[in-house]
Amino acid sequence: MTNQQLVLASRPEGLPTEATFRLESTPMPRPQPGEVLVETMYLTVDPYMRGLLREGGSGYMSGVELGQVMRSEGVGRVLESRADGLAAGDIVVGGTGWQTHAVLTAKYCRKVDPALAPVSTALGVLGMPGLTAYFGLLDLCQPKAGETVVVSGAAGAVGSVAGQIAKIQGCRVVGIAGGEEKCRWLKELGFDATLDYKSTTDYRRALAALCPSGIDCYFDNVGGAISDAVLMLINEGARISLCGQIAQYNAAKPEMGPRLLFNLIVKQARMEGFLVTKYFPRAKEGFAALAGWLREGRIQYRETIIDGIENTPRALIGLFHGDNTGKMLVRVAR
Amino acid sequence: MTNQQLVLASRPEGLPTEATFRLESTPMPRPQPGEVLVETMYLTVDPYMRGLLREGGSGYMSGVELGQVMRSEGVGRVLESRADGLAAGDIVVGGTGWQTHAVLTAKYCRKVDPALAPVSTALGVLGMPGLTAYFGLLDLCQPKAGETVVVSGAAGAVGSVAGQIAKIQGCRVVGIAGGEEKCRWLKELGFDATLDYKSTTDYRRALAALCPSGIDCYFDNVGGAISDAVLMLINEGARISLCGQIAQYNAAKPEMGPRLLFNLIVKQARMEGFLVTKYFPRAKEGFAALAGWLREGRIQYRETIIDGIENTPRALIGLFHGDNTGKMLVRVAR
Repeated sequence: MTNQQLVLASRPEGLPTEATFRLESTPMPRPQPGEVLVETMYLTVDPYMRGLLREGGSGYMSGVELGQVMRSEGVGRVLESRADGLAAGDIVVGGTGWQTHAVLTAKYCRKVDPALAPVSTALGVLGMPGLTAYFGLLDLCQPKAGETVVVSGAAGAVGSVAGQIAKIQGCRVVGIAGGEEKCRWLKELGFDATLDYKSTTDYRRALAALCPSGIDCYFDNVGGAISDAVLMLINEGARISLCGQIAQYNAAKPEMGPRLLFNLIVKQARMEGFLVTKYFPRAKEGFAALAGWLREGRIQYRETIIDGIENTPRALIGLFHGDNTGKMLVRVAR
Repeated sequence: MTNQQLVLASRPEGLPTEATFRLESTPMPRPQPGEVLVETMYLTVDPYMRGLLREGGSGYMSGVELGQVMRSEGVGRVLESRADGLAAGDIVVGGTGWQTHAVLTAKYCRKVDPALAPVSTALGVLGMPGLTAYFGLLDLCQPKAGETVVVSGAAGAVGSVAGQIAKIQGCRVVGIAGGEEKCRWLKELGFDATLDYKSTTDYRRALAALCPSGIDCYFDNVGGAISDAVLMLINEGARISLCGQIAQYNAAKPEMGPRLLFNLIVKQARMEGFLVTKYFPRAKEGFAALAGWLREGRIQYRETIIDGIENTPRALIGLFHGDNTGKMLVRVAR
């Protein structure tokens, strides 16, 4: 029995391709004291991973070396434990990397309660994307009831949760996503209005029509021309939470765009970037709130699941084409 | 005896010219109850005034109508008072407009203490520019001792005060200004390092050399390529106070520049725009601190004074050419 792993084969220019990674077989790893051997059930692909493919990483994390296993979180089942507190059969989430089996340091694993929700949610609404939405929206945008909140990348793992939390706060929520189907789903989730950015090039006009009272909060996963339009429509005292800039991640050089920062002055507005790691000390608070809302049916989620570890690169590439609705996952084993 | 006033004669495209304004004589105005007649001593010209010349203004204030007196603060001597609390001979600062005489509502005037400092400072270090520097730096950047603070437009009325306040906070302060003479003055003020932006086109490299520990706070009066360079050098948790974007004010359309907001995410940094009006309720606190530092010699100031009301348009145009060191003023009467 061997371990299948995806290693970085080459550094992509622009979009990653299937040649960016290579599937290899290695001997099954063995846990040392304090460690567990895990069989991967689900792997995650997330936009930030594009930065891992760059030599030197992306400014806040080191890059993956050529020939090394692609770094990633995964959910898995403990096959063998040499650590207190975890036993064979337990489900954990941790830094498995893109491989079928991983040895993990037990103290860096988070045990998943399968009774709470399907275990795959530990990579989505009850995982990093959920925390990202929770803190990025509540801590940085501080939305108040009646305010207008715009979310870009609204049908993604983070955006869909951020928008629903804004609804729970009593806001008018406008979601921006690509395609009618995604927009339909956002309406099902309770978004007040949606903008299919593929249906127009005049984002400003379209958004202005959807935000008759202007924009008080913007939760941004995308950047680029969509953000330009938002910036032209913000209200006094607006708060912008910069979560991601997926429109820029595959560019070799920064794209050019209009200089609009004077609008932040005119509107006395704030823009703040964050990494979810900042909020790890408060993770319990976030998970508790998210689990409660999930149980009450106030937050719903969707997953786009691709089967087979060999298809993980395709899943990552698909993210940048907007192939996913909700969380993009790879199912490695049932 | 007549009142000389500068009215808006035409709306400029790009830089204002002398044809933008027209000098007119009108009958001397008379104060009503609650008002004072003031003889203007000093008028101010400030970068934000470019926005007043646009039809519809600049988003947070209405424009000046064609044929109307140019709006502006001024320092003047009360010639006749019909209001309690002000008497002939008092010095006040208020919204005189660009004219030799003005009738002002007394409650909107601020009485100036000529014993404190030359009365012209009521338009500079002890006026709006001083408050702008004080709150924009302390409230939004929140600089801590030992941090590196970069100020653009550092030799201007606001920037020179912001930089000195940062020094008082114990920061390493780097000022960006145009020309050797201005940089020499900044050194006299105690700035730790200066960048003459006219001496290089590689702002990033030059700034990196002057900021070996990166940049924690940025007080921005300028925007554009200088800000791009700063954004590439910010530290984790950096705070950017957007005070002005003078590099953009004369553009008909927004200039294009690289999209660099991902850096705010990577560095978990905050950028906030403000208008000094936000802090008017706390003006007393600001004036008290500034007056104290001035008295103790911990803050110094310079004025670039042009004589004659007819030269006020030239003074405004000069601002955009960087003709001023410190506060640009027009002396209308002694």
